[in-house]
Amino acid sequence: MRFIIQRDHLVQSVQDVMKAVTSRTTIPILTGIKIVVSNEGVTLTGSDSDISIESFIPKEEAGDEIVEIKQTGAIVLQAKFFSEIVKKLPTDTVEIEVQNHLQTVIRSGKSEFNLNGLDAEEYPHLPQINEENAFQIPTDLLKMMIRQTVFAVSTSETRPVLTGVNWKVENNELICIATDSHRLALRKAKIDLTTNETYNVVIPGKSLNELSKILDDNNEPIDIVMTENQVLFKAKHLLFFSRLLEGNYPDTTRLIPAESKTDVVVGTKEFLQSIDRASLLAREGRNNVVKFATIEGGSIEISSNTPEIGKVVEELQSQSIEGEELKISFSAKYVMDALKALEGSEIKISFTGAMRPFLIRPMNDDSILQLILPVRTY
Amino acid sequence: MRFIIQRDHLVQSVQDVMKAVTSRTTIPILTGIKIVVSNEGVTLTGSDSDISIESFIPKEEAGDEIVEIKQTGAIVLQAKFFSEIVKKLPTDTVEIEVQNHLQTVIRSGKSEFNLNGLDAEEYPHLPQINEENAFQIPTDLLKMMIRQTVFAVSTSETRPVLTGVNWKVENNELICIATDSHRLALRKAKIDLTTNETYNVVIPGKSLNELSKILDDNNEPIDIVMTENQVLFKAKHLLFFSRLLEGNYPDTTRLIPAESKTDVVVGTKEFLQSIDRASLLAREGRNNVVKFATIEGGSIEISSNTPEIGKVVEELQSQSIEGEELKISFSAKYVMDALKALEGSEIKISFTGAMRPFLIRPMNDDSILQLILPVRTY
Repeated sequence: MRFIIQRDHLVQSVQDVMKAVTSRTTIPILTGIKIVVSNEGVTLTGSDSDISIESFIPKEEAGDEIVEIKQTGAIVLQAKFFSEIVKKLPTDTVEIEVQNHLQTVIRSGKSEFNLNGLDAEEYPHLPQINEENAFQIPTDLLKMMIRQTVFAVSTSETRPVLTGVNWKVENNELICIATDSHRLALRKAKIDLTTNETYNVVIPGKSLNELSKILDDNNEPIDIVMTENQVLFKAKHLLFFSRLLEGNYPDTTRLIPAESKTDVVVGTKEFLQSIDRASLLAREGRNNVVKFATIEGGSIEISSNTPEIGKVVEELQSQSIEGEELKISFSAKYVMDALKALEGSEIKISFTGAMRPFLIRPMNDDSILQLILPVRTY
Repeated sequence: MRFIIQRDHLVQSVQDVMKAVTSRTTIPILTGIKIVVSNEGVTLTGSDSDISIESFIPKEEAGDEIVEIKQTGAIVLQAKFFSEIVKKLPTDTVEIEVQNHLQTVIRSGKSEFNLNGLDAEEYPHLPQINEENAFQIPTDLLKMMIRQTVFAVSTSETRPVLTGVNWKVENNELICIATDSHRLALRKAKIDLTTNETYNVVIPGKSLNELSKILDDNNEPIDIVMTENQVLFKAKHLLFFSRLLEGNYPDTTRLIPAESKTDVVVGTKEFLQSIDRASLLAREGRNNVVKFATIEGGSIEISSNTPEIGKVVEELQSQSIEGEELKISFSAKYVMDALKALEGSEIKISFTGAMRPFLIRPMNDDSILQLILPVRTY
């Protein structure tokens, strides 16, 4: 194996596949990056066996030569060292050559590295996925849907299935749902399906976070292929595989109240900042519980009180309050997380009483909702 | 006590004095910030008893009213909460009022905070320092001198005096020296002294780091006053006190070799980058030891070898090599630290043999030198 490559392309690809590599693995070869050189270009692979990422660098792109292939072949190099080395090389091109006994030479200017490689034959194979039933969504929409739901997954392993996001495809719609049983985030979007297939899978939150970091912000379509135990996201020159979580995701539709007793419309930013300030003096437990009350003249009051430190009262003018008066307590953190995930300058909060979950939605947009369970303190 | 203040000025001052406040103190009142309101303005104080910082906000500046004093007085407020609150207040002005029983109200727009205050009478007094024998240096030079020496202090408490920087004033010169007994950094500068006083003190490295963070980058003069156990840095509206370290600082002058056997002149940046790359595969111990050798044709070779990972050889063209051939090993970290502290595009390295300390200096500038002890591996 021997090739000469433009350093910037190599650095970018290494950085992408590194997102899947962890030093905490029980399979030693997975601490490495697999490099395969064919006559078409160079393919890098990183994997922690839950997530696998494959990045392809074509021989040439838009008429520019990116890789000069001298000899095809394959090797696995220690990811920690290889990634540091390529980042710091002195010249714009790099030569990589495998010599005897898997010894790999990396040359750039007057720098010469010799790394002990591992046999690429021993690297685990990526899942084989039949790509017939792919559907597509634009990259920026995919990233948005991840951002608006993944924060609500459970961080506890008590119910492992809740550490993932439930993705359902039915009736030409993709629905993403995450819940940690204290709050729930739901986001849906229309998609074009060529078949009548329906899917109902649970993708680990960690996988979605890593995927989101790798994808550029553009509206190029991403192919998504779901199988029984794997999902594949396919962008230009990039394959991202994640295993799926086993177990049945709870049916969350019945959790979402269909009617409400108090509806409050308020500026998103003002509401977020008031809760943020009110939570400064609320140190009860981990999630900073604050009190919310409708008051005279269409205003709301958000407050907290920790006798040994002090108290804070925030008053906020709403756009409208309809229905019953209300006093309720909730986690400032959960409500702030939800507000940050919403778009739009105004939101509507729909309460069904102080002990019932409440909904936060943007005005005139039913593609997203955030549901939060109150805390019993009033 | 009652006053109305422009929020931005308050935020900046709180941020400055917070640099001295730690939550790990055995004196509970030091977790607070002292606020004193006089007819001239507002003074904030933070202290961890080693470092004390006082920031003054004048009633008006350049014709603008910054503080409206309603009633003078003093209070101590919990730094952690107070600093978070002022940062997040909704309006440009803030009213602060002490009511009964040290209860302090902070009002801004429709936000109202009540904080439990502490009695300002119980806050420790700052050191009284006679400012007669002050000398001055420009802020940017002071920050540069700190940056070029403080990194070389010892992080071990085995010899506490080495955790500080030795500041000597004699013959109208300020000399700053730091050493951890493996390397030494020295920087000197001319100063104007009005008296013939000489000083020889040791300032904790931590104090100098914090001072450097607070000072703006400008060439305004800073007054420096040294006493037996305290140093005071006095900028506009800012006082920074640090205790001095006790004990005699070792005499370092005899460590610095007066002559050399091999002199190498090389580009600072190229040398730094070569060592950085060579150190990537050098994992022996904590400081990444690399080998350095003069080779044919005025070049130098920097290399390292860790059999289980691989090896690296870097070649670098020098500007000149004078004197004996040389092979030497040194800590890549120490040499990189030293190179980052130097200014200028070329440096001269003066060796006196493989077992002796060597010097790194910029060309044509004797105000700074870096000395490093080699490691015995060749």
